[in-house]
Amino acid sequence: MMQKSFAVLALAGLVFASSARADEVIRHKIPGSDFPISLAIEIPPGSTVVNLSGAVPAVIDPKADPNSVAAFGDTQAQVVSVLKKIEGTLKSLHLGMSDVIKMQVFLVKDPALGKVDLAGLMKGYKQFFGTPEQPNLPTRSAFEIAGLANPGWLVEIEVSAVRPKK
Amino acid sequence: MMQKSFAVLALAGLVFASSARADEVIRHKIPGSDFPISLAIEIPPGSTVVNLSGAVPAVIDPKADPNSVAAFGDTQAQVVSVLKKIEGTLKSLHLGMSDVIKMQVFLVKDPALGKVDLAGLMKGYKQFFGTPEQPNLPTRSAFEIAGLANPGWLVEIEVSAVRPKK
Amino acid sequence: MMQKSFAVLALAGLVFASSARADEVIRHKIPGSDFPISLAIEIPPGSTVVNLSGAVPAVIDPKADPNSVAAFGDTQAQVVSVLKKIEGTLKSLHLGMSDVIKMQVFLVKDPALGKVDLAGLMKGYKQFFGTPEQPNLPTRSAFEIAGLANPGWLVEIEVSAVRPKK
Repeated sequence: MMQKSFAVLALAGLVFASSARADEVIRHKIPGSDFPISLAIEIPPGSTVVNLSGAVPAVIDPKADPNSVAAFGDTQAQVVSVLKKIEGTLKSLHLGMSDVIKMQVFLVKDPALGKVDLAGLMKGYKQFFGTPEQPNLPTRSAFEIAGLANPGWLVEIEVSAVRPKK
Repeated sequence: MMQKSFAVLALAGLVFASSARADEVIRHKIPGSDFPISLAIEIPPGSTVVNLSGAVPAVIDPKADPNSVAAFGDTQAQVVSVLKKIEGTLKSLHLGMSDVIKMQVFLVKDPALGKVDLAGLMKGYKQFFGTPEQPNLPTRSAFEIAGLANPGWLVEIEVSAVRPKK
Repeated sequence: MMQKSFAVLALAGLVFASSARADEVIRHKIPGSDFPISLAIEIPPGSTVVNLSGAVPAVIDPKADPNSVAAFGDTQAQVVSVLKKIEGTLKSLHLGMSDVIKMQVFLVKDPALGKVDLAGLMKGYKQFFGTPEQPNLPTRSAFEIAGLANPGWLVEIEVSAVRPKK
């Protein structure tokens, strides 16, 4: 009898562990807002968190000065370039944009505008987040910083993802 | 006999898992300092981590230009506003300021001072952290950045919390 | 028979949990690059994550103005100072540089150069990461910010570590 109860306890333990493993990331919406980021995201126990190094844009015009904005494009083009690079990195790790749970966006003033191009950021960002095909939204912070490693870069983006439970 | 040892092993496993779940966040103090942040914080296995999007201040003077510092107040007022907003978000998730484990503070130069108002940051911050009622201190980094999305904003704060074990 | 299968299931569960616990941090290299940071790092379930508050440089010249770069040294000297401080903090927590999984580097323009000293950052950084004795590389983002709390500081570094499984 004792032995049976041990085994039953063990089974109960397994069932519990298994249901804990089934816990998925919880994405809390911003109340009364359609701004395409999450208010908060809960990462449950048993999650595999994957942090990526900050990603920067790729050259789109190889003829331009490699230290100029012309080589990398405007803010929207650079945001799309950076997010495509992140998407590729995630894919190489068997992850996707829908797994991204946290984002920090570091923006530099667009010299053509004399200020950071927030509209350009959003136009690029919305191609990857909050679409019918990919509705999952990360938590996000976006800042204007003083500069990035290359004077042609207008944006660097750092993300974390959570690997979906099998 | 073999079967018994399996079952006992299983029970041992359960006990271990249960004690791991009881582990709480460990907050390490800065040696020989009363600066109200933690030196380091350990997030044990089995924790639920909750990341919040960056929070920004609320308008305190609706008559002022909505893109001016006057609309949002000085650094101390904005820090209090942001931390109250974070407190409200945490409360809506059944969390509190005592659960905050990590904070990044992004400050903009106060135009009235010609520099970032670190004293104002601390005066606001100390109303929420390191008080007799709420002694828990997060790890923290604070920086002067070049700008935020609204020219009237002097501070944006990003926090993470850990949900207390039941 | 039923009872036996329960016990076997339980054992299978334990083996799985145990192998999950043995999972170590996975560091993904940047393909085709020897830049000494990781492309991405996976933090497996069951990890203890340790976040440190942002670390700043120590005074190296007590005779210099305590609010000047002279008091703290150039970027390379300050990076070494900050990383030594981080190494000391980690050691006090029974951790080491090889356990660091994430780093954010906040740089200020070196007034002597008129720009941030990325070469100085790398020279300091490479003394601690990517050496034969300590090959483990964190994910990293590095930015130029507008300023730090002391006008003599050229760098602040924030790291997270994962405690090795016993």
